[in-house]
Amino acid sequence: MSPERVPLCLDLLPALRGEDTTKSFFQELVNILLSYVCKSFRRSSKVLDFHHPHQLREGLEGFSLELPDQPENLEQLLVDCRDTLKYGVKTGTVRAVDCFAENVPKMYYRFTYEVSPVFILMEEILLRKMQEIVGWSEEEGDGVFCPGGTMSNLYSVLLARYHFFPEVKTKGMTALPRLILFTSAHSHYSVKKSAAVLGIGSDNVVVGCVPFYVNATAGTTVYGAFDPLNAIADICESHGLWLHVDAAWGGGLLMSKRHRVKLQGIERAWSVTWNPHKMMGAPLQCSAILVKKRGLLKDCNQMCAEYLFQTDKHYDTSYDTGDKTIQCGRHVDVFKLWLMWKAKGSEGFESQVNKCLENAEHLFDKLKQRPDFELVFKSEPEHSNVCFWYIPPSLRNMSPGPERNRRLHEVAPKIKAKMMEQGMAMIGYQPLGDKVNFFRCVFSNPATQTEDVDYLLEEIASLGHDICIRTETDL
Amino acid sequence: MSPERVPLCLDLLPALRGEDTTKSFFQELVNILLSYVCKSFRRSSKVLDFHHPHQLREGLEGFSLELPDQPENLEQLLVDCRDTLKYGVKTGTVRAVDCFAENVPKMYYRFTYEVSPVFILMEEILLRKMQEIVGWSEEEGDGVFCPGGTMSNLYSVLLARYHFFPEVKTKGMTALPRLILFTSAHSHYSVKKSAAVLGIGSDNVVVGCVPFYVNATAGTTVYGAFDPLNAIADICESHGLWLHVDAAWGGGLLMSKRHRVKLQGIERAWSVTWNPHKMMGAPLQCSAILVKKRGLLKDCNQMCAEYLFQTDKHYDTSYDTGDKTIQCGRHVDVFKLWLMWKAKGSEGFESQVNKCLENAEHLFDKLKQRPDFELVFKSEPEHSNVCFWYIPPSLRNMSPGPERNRRLHEVAPKIKAKMMEQGMAMIGYQPLGDKVNFFRCVFSNPATQTEDVDYLLEEIASLGHDICIRTETDL
Repeated sequence: MSPERVPLCLDLLPALRGEDTTKSFFQELVNILLSYVCKSFRRSSKVLDFHHPHQLREGLEGFSLELPDQPENLEQLLVDCRDTLKYGVKTGTVRAVDCFAENVPKMYYRFTYEVSPVFILMEEILLRKMQEIVGWSEEEGDGVFCPGGTMSNLYSVLLARYHFFPEVKTKGMTALPRLILFTSAHSHYSVKKSAAVLGIGSDNVVVGCVPFYVNATAGTTVYGAFDPLNAIADICESHGLWLHVDAAWGGGLLMSKRHRVKLQGIERAWSVTWNPHKMMGAPLQCSAILVKKRGLLKDCNQMCAEYLFQTDKHYDTSYDTGDKTIQCGRHVDVFKLWLMWKAKGSEGFESQVNKCLENAEHLFDKLKQRPDFELVFKSEPEHSNVCFWYIPPSLRNMSPGPERNRRLHEVAPKIKAKMMEQGMAMIGYQPLGDKVNFFRCVFSNPATQTEDVDYLLEEIASLGHDICIRTETDL
Repeated sequence: MSPERVPLCLDLLPALRGEDTTKSFFQELVNILLSYVCKSFRRSSKVLDFHHPHQLREGLEGFSLELPDQPENLEQLLVDCRDTLKYGVKTGTVRAVDCFAENVPKMYYRFTYEVSPVFILMEEILLRKMQEIVGWSEEEGDGVFCPGGTMSNLYSVLLARYHFFPEVKTKGMTALPRLILFTSAHSHYSVKKSAAVLGIGSDNVVVGCVPFYVNATAGTTVYGAFDPLNAIADICESHGLWLHVDAAWGGGLLMSKRHRVKLQGIERAWSVTWNPHKMMGAPLQCSAILVKKRGLLKDCNQMCAEYLFQTDKHYDTSYDTGDKTIQCGRHVDVFKLWLMWKAKGSEGFESQVNKCLENAEHLFDKLKQRPDFELVFKSEPEHSNVCFWYIPPSLRNMSPGPERNRRLHEVAPKIKAKMMEQGMAMIGYQPLGDKVNFFRCVFSNPATQTEDVDYLLEEIASLGHDICIRTETDL
C-alpha cells in the first residue's frame, strides 16, 4: 500500500509510512519499556516522584496533558510515553506494598490520585474535552470511563433513578413507586438490560406509572439512525424527565463539522454515553458516561469505605475518583485514547470519521445502481451503516410476499457461512422487525478504500450467485 | 539482582534471567506483532481461518490451549503468542466490516465465537480450571470474567435474586418482597454497593425481611481474614440461602497446598468471586465470577437481541458468550492469565503465593520483637496482610486511653506523607472500627525479599522517630 494513499493521521500506527518506520517506532517503545522495567527492579529506584494535581496539570518539564487539534509527530509521541511512565507510580517495585501493588511493573491501579496521578488527570482532561464537544459549559459536567457502552448506559439509568429518588440507595426499590423508562424500539438492548439489572424490570421500559427517564439513541446498532434529539429534549423538559443520549456509536460524529448536525440537541442531555472504541477506533474497552450535574456520580455511588478513601491525606483528595464508580479498581482505558488524540489531533479524528461515512455513501450509491442488490432503506445513510439484501437470480422476478421472504431469509446466512470458510472478508447480517435476514455493512476502519467496498460487493454477489445455483431446489 | 535469588517462575517477564534475555524476548514479541500488523494491512490476507470450537479445543497443529502444571519455556511462550494471533480473527483488516471492526489490528472484540474463537475457548478453559480448583464437579459450573471484583460480586447478588425471583427480570423489584442480604462487617463495600445499584438498597444488607443471600469473605481487605466457610455453608444449606464466597483477595491461596485449607468449604458456595489480578499477579483487570448452576447466567442476563446473536449460524452458537454478560463487548482479560499460566504453571503460582505469605510471616515475627511497633492482632496472619502501629518514643510509656489514641491516630498519615515525598517506599494506612490509623502491609509481589521487609520497617521507624521529635508539641 503506497504511503500517499491514506493520510498519516488516519492511523495510530505509523505503518502507512512504511515498515521501516513502524519497526523503529516499535523498537523505541520497547527500549522505553525495557529501561522502565529494569529500573523498577532496582531497589535504589524511587516508587514515585510525588507532584500535586495542579503541578501535573500545569505541565512539568514540558509534559503537556492537553489534547491537540493537530497530530503530534512520532518523536513527540515517544516522549509522551516516556513522560507517562516517569510521572506514574512504579507499582511494580519491590518496596511498594500499598493496596495490593502488583508484581509486574505496570500502570493499572487507579482509584486514588497517589497511585495513579497521571491517569486520573488524563481522564479528567479527556472527559472535559468530550463534554466541551458535546456542548456543556465549563461549570457543568462529570463522568467516568466505563467497561463498555452497556455499563455507561447502566450508569445513566442508575443516576437518573438516584436523582429523582435518592432514598433508593439505602431503602431499595421497595420504597419507590413503579418506575418507567422510555426508549425507542431500535435502541440498544442495554437499556432493557439496565432496567433488569437495576431491579426496575425490563417490562417497565416503555409503558407504565412514574416516568423518569428517556433514552434517545444517536446512531442505532443496525440502521445507524438518529433520534430527533431536540424534539425529545423539548418533551423531557416540559415533563421534567431525565434525558439520556446513547451516543455509543454516533458520538464519533461529534468530531466532524460536517456530520455533527445529526446530533443537534445533544447538549441538552442530562447524560451521554460515548464509546471512543467504536467510531474513533480506540482499542476496546474505551467508553465514557458523561453526566451533566456535578457531584451526582459521587453522591449516588460513594460508600465511604474509609479504609480505602482516607480524607486525611496530604493532597486534594477530590482527585481520588474511586468512590464515584461502581467498580473499585479500574482498567486504565484513558491512556490509549489520550495517546491517540496526541497522534491524530481532533482534526485527525474528523477526517477519519468523514472517510468512514464517505465509504458508506459510496456503497449506498453502488447498491442503488445494481439489480442484484436491494437496499433496506432508500434514503441516504445517516451513519456508516448500510443495510441491504443480495437478491439471487431465482428471486429477482418473484413478487413480494411470504414465499419470497422465506427464501430471501436464507440467503444471507448461506453467503456468510461460505465467506467465513473462505476467510477473505467478514460482514454481519440479521433480521429486524418485519425484515428478513439482511446484510449490514459498518465502516469504522478508515483504511478501508472504495476498492475494498467494491470487492466486498463482488464477493457477496459471486458467493450468492453460486449458492443459489447449487441450492436452487431448496430455495 | 542476581538470577539465583528468585526462581524464574516467580515472574512472567524473564527479567530475572538478565537484561539480555529480557531484551531478546521483547524483540521477538515485537517481530511477531510487526509481521501480524503488516500482514493485516495487506488486502490479500485472510480475515480469519475458520475452525469449529471442537477443532480448536483439540489443539490444531500443536497449539494447545490447556493449562500446564509446570512452566513452559520462553520459546514456547513465543510460539503460543504467534498461534494466538494466527487463529484469531484479524479484525483490523480493511475487509472486515462486520460489527464495528476496528482500525488497529487487535484482539478485543469478543461477544461471539466467530469474532473471537481463541479467546472464548481460553475463557472456557480458565473458568473450568478455576472451578476445578474451587472443587466443583465436571457437571457444575459456569462463569465469566468481569471488569473487577466489584462487578463479580454484583453478578453474584444479581444471580441469587434471579434464582429465587426470576420475575424480577421483567417486573422489577416492585413485584418482590423486601429482600435481605447477609454479610460480615469486614466484607468489601462492593456488597453494599451491589445492593444499592441493584435496587435492593444498602440498608437491606444485614437485617430485614426475606433473606436470600449470604456473602462470606475469604480474605478481607484490611485484615486478610477468612470467614468460616463450612459453618456458614451449614446455615445456608438448612435455610436454603444462596452462599456467595468473595474470594477476590483470598482466592489466590487456592493455588497453594499449604494455604488452601483456609478456604475449606468453598466448594459448597453457589458463586465465587476470584481476582487473579490480586494475589496471582495478573495485570488488572482480571476478575472472574464462578457460578455453580449452569444456565443461570444466560437465563438471568440474556435479552435475545437477535440482531447481535443470530442462532442460524453454521457453528455451535452456545460459544457466543455475549448474551450471558451484563456488558456487550468485553475487554480480553483472559489472554494474559492464560499466558501467565503457561509461563508459570500451577506450581509457579503456588510458590509465588507461598513466598508472599512467608514475607508476611517474616514481618509479623519482626514486629513481635520490636518495642517501637505494635501489632493490631497478636495472632499469626491468615493472608499476606499485616497490620501494625508505629509507636513514637513519646507514646511508648503512655497508658492506653483516648489521649494516646488521639495522638497515635496522627502518626501514620504523617509518616506516609513524608514517605511519599521521599518516594522510596509505599505503604497504606487506615482506621477501622475502634482502631485508630494503622499501617497495613500487603504482599503480592513475589520479588519482594525479606531484606525489603526489613528496609521498610527501618524506614518507618526512622521517619516516625524524626517526625515525633519535630512535632512533639503538636502531638
